[in-house]
This record gives sequence, C-alpha cells and structure tokens, in this order.
Amino acid sequence: MPDATQLECFKNPAPDRDYVIEHIADEFTSVCPKTGHPDFGTVTLRYRPARTCVELKAYKLYLQSFRNEGIFYEAVTNTIRDNLVAAMDPVWLELTTDWKGRGGIRSRITATHGDVPRRN
Amino acid sequence: MPDATQLECFKNPAPDRDYVIEHIADEFTSVCPKTGHPDFGTVTLRYRPARTCVELKAYKLYLQSFRNEGIFYEAVTNTIRDNLVAAMDPVWLELTTDWKGRGGIRSRITATHGDVPRRN
Amino acid sequence: MPDATQLECFKNPAPDRDYVIEHIADEFTSVCPKTGHPDFGTVTLRYRPARTCVELKAYKLYLQSFRNEGIFYEAVTNTIRDNLVAAMDPVWLELTTDWKGRGGIRSRITATHGDVPRRN
Amino acid sequence: MPDATQLECFKNPAPDRDYVIEHIADEFTSVCPKTGHPDFGTVTLRYRPARTCVELKAYKLYLQSFRNEGIFYEAVTNTIRDNLVAAMDPVWLELTTDWKGRGGIRSRITATHGDVPRRN
Amino acid sequence: MPDATQLECFKNPAPDRDYVIEHIADEFTSVCPKTGHPDFGTVTLRYRPARTCVELKAYKLYLQSFRNEGIFYEAVTNTIRDNLVAAMDPVWLELTTDWKGRGGIRSRITATHGDVPRRN
Amino acid sequence: MPDATQLECFKNPAPDRDYVIEHIADEFTSVCPKTGHPDFGTVTLRYRPARTCVELKAYKLYLQSFRNEGIFYEAVTNTIRDNLVAAMDPVWLELTTDWKGRGGIRSRITATHGDVPRRN
Amino acid sequence: MPDATQLECFKNPAPDRDYVIEHIADEFTSVCPKTGHPDFGTVTLRYRPARTCVELKAYKLYLQSFRNEGIFYEAVTNTIRDNLVAAMDPVWLELTTDWKGRGGIRSRITATHGDVPRRN
Amino acid sequence: MPDATQLECFKNPAPDRDYVIEHIADEFTSVCPKTGHPDFGTVTLRYRPARTCVELKAYKLYLQSFRNEGIFYEAVTNTIRDNLVAAMDPVWLELTTDWKGRGGIRSRITATHGDVPRRN
Amino acid sequence: MPDATQLECFKNPAPDRDYVIEHIADEFTSVCPKTGHPDFGTVTLRYRPARTCVELKAYKLYLQSFRNEGIFYEAVTNTIRDNLVAAMDPVWLELTTDWKGRGGIRSRITATHGDVPRRN
Amino acid sequence: MPDATQLECFKNPAPDRDYVIEHIADEFTSVCPKTGHPDFGTVTLRYRPARTCVELKAYKLYLQSFRNEGIFYEAVTNTIRDNLVAAMDPVWLELTTDWKGRGGIRSRITATHGDVPRRN
Repeated sequence: MPDATQLECFKNPAPDRDYVIEHIADEFTSVCPKTGHPDFGTVTLRYRPARTCVELKAYKLYLQSFRNEGIFYEAVTNTIRDNLVAAMDPVWLELTTDWKGRGGIRSRITATHGDVPRRN
Repeated sequence: MPDATQLECFKNPAPDRDYVIEHIADEFTSVCPKTGHPDFGTVTLRYRPARTCVELKAYKLYLQSFRNEGIFYEAVTNTIRDNLVAAMDPVWLELTTDWKGRGGIRSRITATHGDVPRRN
Repeated sequence: MPDATQLECFKNPAPDRDYVIEHIADEFTSVCPKTGHPDFGTVTLRYRPARTCVELKAYKLYLQSFRNEGIFYEAVTNTIRDNLVAAMDPVWLELTTDWKGRGGIRSRITATHGDVPRRN
Repeated sequence: MPDATQLECFKNPAPDRDYVIEHIADEFTSVCPKTGHPDFGTVTLRYRPARTCVELKAYKLYLQSFRNEGIFYEAVTNTIRDNLVAAMDPVWLELTTDWKGRGGIRSRITATHGDVPRRN
Repeated sequence: MPDATQLECFKNPAPDRDYVIEHIADEFTSVCPKTGHPDFGTVTLRYRPARTCVELKAYKLYLQSFRNEGIFYEAVTNTIRDNLVAAMDPVWLELTTDWKGRGGIRSRITATHGDVPRRN
Repeated sequence: MPDATQLECFKNPAPDRDYVIEHIADEFTSVCPKTGHPDFGTVTLRYRPARTCVELKAYKLYLQSFRNEGIFYEAVTNTIRDNLVAAMDPVWLELTTDWKGRGGIRSRITATHGDVPRRN
Repeated sequence: MPDATQLECFKNPAPDRDYVIEHIADEFTSVCPKTGHPDFGTVTLRYRPARTCVELKAYKLYLQSFRNEGIFYEAVTNTIRDNLVAAMDPVWLELTTDWKGRGGIRSRITATHGDVPRRN
Repeated sequence: MPDATQLECFKNPAPDRDYVIEHIADEFTSVCPKTGHPDFGTVTLRYRPARTCVELKAYKLYLQSFRNEGIFYEAVTNTIRDNLVAAMDPVWLELTTDWKGRGGIRSRITATHGDVPRRN
Repeated sequence: MPDATQLECFKNPAPDRDYVIEHIADEFTSVCPKTGHPDFGTVTLRYRPARTCVELKAYKLYLQSFRNEGIFYEAVTNTIRDNLVAAMDPVWLELTTDWKGRGGIRSRITATHGDVPRRN
Repeated sequence: MPDATQLECFKNPAPDRDYVIEHIADEFTSVCPKTGHPDFGTVTLRYRPARTCVELKAYKLYLQSFRNEGIFYEAVTNTIRDNLVAAMDPVWLELTTDWKGRGGIRSRITATHGDVPRRN
C-alpha cells in the first residue's frame, strides 16, 4: 500500500508571501483492480504552501509506490490529495489525475482542498 | 433505442469532498435520421458527483448503443444528459458533443444541469 | 443580396433546459466591395435557443448566398447577427467572423445579442 | 458483407498523364470479431490511375458498408485493396489503415499493389 | 516620425450594437534606438467602437511608417494606443505588442483605454 | 471558363541556374458540377523555370477565374497544370490540389510535367 | 524474466502480398537495473510478415511482462527484436524504443532484422 | 551571489496609464545545491509599472548571474521577485519559473506582489 | 544596394571533415519594387564549407542591408546565393526564401550551387 | 577544457546486429568566446556502435563540462564528434547541434563520421 510517511516536508522559505507551487508528474502508473492491466496517467499537484512544502524526491518516491497497487482512478486521486493535505496542511491544494484512454474514453479527476487563492 | 438502464453506478467514495470527474469519449457514432449517413463525434462528460458515480464500462456500452440509432445532434445531447442525471442525480453535470464537419460546418452542443461548482 | 428568408427554423426540442449550440463554418467567402477580390473567413455562431433553432442545411445555404456579394467585414458580421436574431429570437447569440490576412493584417469581429448565459 | 460492386468507376480524364490521387477517409468504423466492440480508423487511398478512377460517393458508401461487419484489421486492409484493384486495375495503389488505440497500442497497416511511381 | 493623421476613420455602421473589432498585424518592424538593429513584432488591436472605426488600409500604412523609426517597445505601444484613441475615441481599446526575442528574452506590452466590455 | 491567356509570364532572371519556385494559394474555390455546392481547396505550384516565370498577380487572377466554374477536382488539377505548362514551358512542374473534406473524405491530386530536378 | 512463449502468432492472411504492419505501444515501462527507478517509453514495431503475424493481445501481455524487470535500454530493444524474430520469422522487422528523458537526455534505439521492403 | 544592484531601471514613460509589461527569458540556468547538476528553466516576469521600469539588458545580465549559483527552485523564484520589487516598487508583479523535468516531474512556481490589475 | 563586401569569412576549422552548416534568419524584410509595400520572409542558408565559413554577425548585417531595397523575390534569392558563393566558394550551398502571404499566396524559392552532399 | 577522458564506454551487447542509438540532450550550454554571453542548444548524437557504446551518465557529465567554456558553435560540434569517435570508434556517427536564436538567426551544424547505415 502507498506509504504516506514517505512524504517528507521542508520549511516554507517564504511563509508570509503569496505564491503557488506546481509539480507535474508525467510518469504515473498503477494497476486496474478489475482487469489487472496497468493504468498510466499524469498527476498534477498545485498548492499554496502554509508552513511546509513537500520535498520533491520524497514526493517522487511516494508516487512510485503506487506502481503495483490495484486501485481505481477515484481512489488514487482522493488518496494522494488526502495524504498531501495531512503531510503539509496547505492553504489551498488541487490534485488532478489525467488517465490515458481505455476503451476509447480518457478520464480526468480533479480534487481540491481549501479555498482557491485570489489569482495564480 | 439507447437503453438508460445500462447506466450502472457505484457509490461515490468521497461524497463529502469537492471534486470533479471528466470522461472524454472520442469514438461516438450515431446515424443522421434525415440522410441515413453516419455521424461521428466526441462526447465529453464533466460532473460533480453526489451519492453515486457512473461506472466507466457501463457508460461505454451505453454510448455504443447509439451506433445505429437515427437521431439528431440536439437529441443525442439532451438524451445523454437526461439519462445521466436520472441515473446519478449529480450536484452538477455538463454534457458536450463535438461533431465532425458536415457540408463545411462543425457543431458543438453543450447542455448543463445544476450549478457550476466554484472552480475546477 | 443574401436572403434571410432562407433561414428556416425548427422547434427547440428542450426549451426549458439550459444549453448552448455552436456552428463553425470554415468555408465562408464574400467579395470586397472596394477591390473586387474575394474575402475568405470562418463564421462562428454560438447561441442559447429560446423557442426555435436554426436548421443547419438552411443556414449553410444562407451563408453560401454571400458568395458573390460585395460587402465589408463589419456588414457581414452585423447582417448575419441581425438575420439570425430576427429568425430565431434567441436568449443569447454571439456571431464571430475571422478573416484571412490582407496586407499582413488578420481581422476578427464579434457581435453579440442578449445577455451571456451564466457559464458555457 | 461489404459489397465491392458498389465501387463505381469513371473514365480517367487524363490517362496519358502522370498523376496521383489520394482520398483520406477519417470516419471509418467496423466491429472487432473477437470482442464485438467497434473499431475506429482512418483509411488512406493513394493510386495512379490507369483507365478508370473510383467515384468518390460510391467509394464512401462502400466504406460505410463495413460499419457492422465483424472483421480484423488485416482483413479490412487487404479486402479494400483487393476490391479497389479489381474495380480499377490501377498502375499503382497504396491502401493504409490507421487504427485508434486498443489497450494502449495503435496500429497501422499498409498494403500496396504495383510499382511505386517515380516521385509523388 | 509616425504620422497619426494617416489614421482615417469611417462611420461605425452599428453604433448602437455591442461588438468588438480585432486586427492582428504580424509584420510590424521598427528600429532599436540604442543598437540601430531592427526590431520585429506583432501588433494586436482590439476595440469596441463608438462613433467611428479605423480604416484598415490607412491603419496598415500608419503601422508601416514606423519602419525606420528609432523607438523603444514601450513608446511604440503607448504611441499607437494614444494615436488610435485620439483618432477614434472608442468605448474601449486594448493595444498589445509582441516582440521577437532579443538576447533570449521575448517581450509583450499591453496598454488599455476605457473599461473592458462585459464579455467578448 | 477560366482564361489561360491571363497567365502572363516574365523572363527568368537566372535561366542558367538550378532553382525551384513554389506558390501556395490557400484560397481557391470552385463549384461542384454535380451538387452546385462550392468546393474549397489549396493549390500548390512547384516548378523549375526554363525561359520564363509566371507573374504572381496574373496567376492569382487566373485562379480566381475558377470561382463560379462548375468543375471536378481532376479537371481543376489537370487544367491548371496544362495551362501553366503551355504558358511557361518549364523544365519541371508539379501541381497539387488539396480539397477540404466532403462526406468525411479529404482529397489530394498531384499532377506533374517533366522530370523531377535532382534535389529540391 | 519476460517470457517469449507468450508471443502467440496467427497465420498471415495474405502471405503472397506486399504489406507492412505497425504497432505503437505508448505505455511501456521497465526498471533501470542501476538506480531501481522506473523507465517509461514507447515501443514501435514495424514488420513485413512472412507466414505468421503476432497476435495483438498476446503482444500486449508480453510487453507488460517487462514491468518489474531490471533491464537496460539496449537489452530491452534487442530482446524484443530477437523474441519477435524467433516467434514470427518475418521478411523484415524494425523495433524502435523511445525513452522519456533522464537527466535531460532522451534516447531512441532502433534495431532491425532482414532487408527493408522496397517502399512503405 | 546574484547581485541585485545590477537591476538598473528607467523612468516609466507613461506613469499615468494602465499597462502591463511581460518579459519571457527562456534561457535561465542555475545549479542544484543538492546534486551539483545544472537546472534549466524559463523565467516569466509580468508587472504593472509605477514610477520605473527595469532595463532589459541589465535584467538579462542579472539573470545570467545565477548561472553557477547553487540555489533551489523556491529560492530562485522568491529572490528574483524580491529583488525586482525592491528595484522598481511596481503596482503589481508576478514572477513565474518553469523548470525542465527532473526524475519525470516538471515544476512551476509563481510568486506575486501587489494586487492584480483589473484585466490584462 | 546590398553590399556583398560585408560578407566576411573565417577559416573553416575542419576543412577535411564532412559537415554542414545551417543558418535560419526569421526576420528578413525588403520592399516590393512594384507596390512599395514591405515584404517579410525567412532566409535559410545550408552549406558544406570548403576553405572558409561566413561569419555570423557579418551575415546578419548583410541581410539587414536589404531592408529598404526594392527587389523581387527571385532577385533576393539569386543575389544572396551568388554573393555567398563568391565570398566562400563552398562545396555545396542551398539558399531558400519563404515569403509571407500576399493576396492569399505564399511563396518559396530555392536556389542551389554545387552537388548535394551524400546525406545530411 | 572539456575532458574527453570522461567518456566511459561499455561493451556493445549486440555487436553483430544492425542497430542505431540516438541520444538527444536538450540542456546544453556553453559560452560565446566573443561576447562572453551564454549559448544554449540541443546536442543530438546518432551512431551505429561497433565494439563499444558510450555510457549515458558519463556522456551527460562530459556535455556539462562545456558549461563555462568559451567556444564557437563549429568547435563544439567538431570537438564532440572527434571525442566520441576517439572513445568508441563507431561504424557510423552523426553529431548535430541546434542553437537558439542570436540576433534573429538560429543555427544548426551537423558533422558526420563513417558511412550512413543502409536505413534507420
């Protein structure tokens, strides 16, 4: 099971400033629990940090831990969002997963936490 | 006739969270009731689930059931919207059909249900 | 002269629903009244229907009737908007013409009627 | 079964000239004989005519006759090639089918007849 | 010096209607006053006309008059905006210049006049 | 009927040099003799001049003369090729027409004259 | 270890015809034997069949069997080529792997077997 | 260390006008303090000037001074923002850095200062 | 008149090696001798050097010297080719000019000198 | 000075097979010896290995060693080619550098070694 304790954070270097961080991971893969076939997607994280920021290499390893997990699109999206919120407690966070087509249908799921910052 | 009972749903795994699901089906085809020639299009579904989500494979089969149906663009769009609303009762839903050109004119029809979520 | 009586309409099949129709005609041509040279453009119609919708083939023939008309960009745009409004009396309508470059300058003219729908 | 007798031809208007004709049909669909699911693809025909050319509307109807046929990619490609060669007896012909992805794999099959013309 | 008197106008054919005109000139060139090297850019004009519209050929000649002018990006942008506002007195006007890269840096300057129209 | 006498030529300024001229006309239109509907396409001319080159404005007017002509794709292509060959007697010439889709099928016809130059 | 016995073949339906088959698998992943991190790539197979063709679903499962294999780019490419040649004995075969960037460097490896067919 | 005193400014030529300046520097590079490997990115500056504008060549040299600096993404973004705000005291400023992928993850960081202007 | 003496050369640093140099100048402008309007184009130079290479800044200034020259497309192309051949005496040279559209027609002229190198 | 001894090689795993390796490095930078400003480019290596292949990480470090080197485009290209040929003694090698624009001119230099393989 993906291990949220992998999500190390570091202290936000500019906690009193208005800024937004985005990380786009193009190489996400997990396994469909129904068919056993691999799923491939992109995971886009956007957030306005509060006291801490997620460390990039730890985040990469956390995403890699889904590689052989049998898990649905919706669960992937909500799990990553919840784990990141628990680890960082950000002001605002948006987690989007974009999945390659299956049976001619491409899917995208967007989960948010907190209020959208004024403009970024 | 397309059979809305094909639209199986599953329980929303995060009913108390703010999130949006999008499914893009690039391989939709139906038949023009006037000329008998096939129409080709893309069906884009976006919704904010309430208690249930539409099951992806059932949705695919439902869309395939239009294959030999003689039906106008407007009716396709409103029928899919109405059937999905009846099956899921979502907080918000937007159904867009994009049709390949006929006689040099491309068409897009967008039907909505409920209020747009704050931002997604 | 373009004949607005060509613009046949049919009854809106979902008059109590919130939806928007878009038709993009890539193959519009008329004649510049100053130089006599042909102009080429794209005509994009977006509208929220009230009681009636414009019939697609009739609309195509109406647009073709500008083929040998000597008429300026602004007049094309306002004429099509006015004729469509007169024929359909829609809740909202937006008519955009995009013209291929002349002397290194490309032009786009957008004319509207009624209030923009909340979101589409 | 697709009916090759639909492939009407007309007399090549320039039989003593060196030229090549290409028709790209983006809206081809047939049915997978294994799964029963629809397949979608593009059929590209290129040929150097001898005495006759295939009539475009007849060709379109011929392609539409595959709509509910259960038939593999390879058979589609070789059948269309063979039927066109039988109908037109061209100097050279190349028939390519490009299929949308299934299970993450996109396919293209190219079948030829006769010698490639010097340059086109 | 660019001569604003070149900017001929014609009477707005639909002064009581809500519409927006856009002209994109891809072939603008002036001279850098510092280095003497030519600058190349695109000038995009968008406006909601009041009583008059700028004549397209006159506008083209006006833009060409900058060809051998030594003038900075900011001055080009503000000068064209001011000259057009003086010539047309529009309800709203937006003038954007996009400049090709110099030393690895591309620039864009946007100057406006009046209130943005509701939606276009 | 298109009038080939419009095709004025000028003396090749470098008759003893190896070079190739290409003109791409994106705004060609003629009329389908079967349906009466307009056809739209791009006409691409490539040639290696011998003693003369076709004058660009005369060529443009010649192409415009097809505007209301009822004529098939093949005839357009062969007619333009033949008229240009008669007017210029070039070393090599290639005339390609690309037609916008009709009934989901896009077409391209390429007619040549003379031997392809070694490399261009 | 990837199991080449998964590569089922079926009888070439047109063994006496000149044709080429291409399968593009966008969702290939294996593991770097040095770092333990996943590699992602596209595997493109092109071949001219002799007596047999590789079955598409079996080929997909064969590619999936590399998922947790620690193996270098060169070995992936040569292994797939060799396994396919052993399974099908084709007239000609070309196997290309395209790998996503690592440390700012993207790689592509192309291995071939047999003589290129005249033109495809 | 990057030297903010390099950031020369010039007097805003239109201090009482509503306009926005954007500079996109595609060729930014610094060094990762952890691995010692170079980072590559794009730095996009957008601002509404008050009394002064940053001089373009000085800005370029300032950005080049990061070339051999060991510094994290977040620090690059906040440092440039802070130095520019100190040098120009603009009405509004937005500084975005887009970084090429590392380990399959691309990053973008956006820092702002002041209130967004009404529309640009 | 463009001054070919501006074309300074430097000694080919690898005269006994097989290599090709390409310079693409996107910002070329001259004047149409017929209409007096500016022409805009791209000048692409490819050559295999013999004893000398053209110096890049000198080449840029040489191209800028056409800025206010009234000169036809064909003359621009042949003049640049001839001047470069005279200045460098290369093994092979290809000079292509691509011109922005005039009256809906875009042009490209390609002039060569010497034999094409085996492959580049 | 770049140190060619960094270029470690490993034994070609398939020395008796016909294959080609390509590495595209998008993040190359060196310094212009004339102006002192940084140059940015892409280095594309294609080769058919003989007994050895260049190790990817060693190649990356070798390319990074040009970072603060004052060196011309031509010298970069020929130096990398020569160093790789000395290190690997490949059957065939092609080294291309693509440089971002300077003064509106983009450059590409291609140096080769050995005979092009039959087809790749």
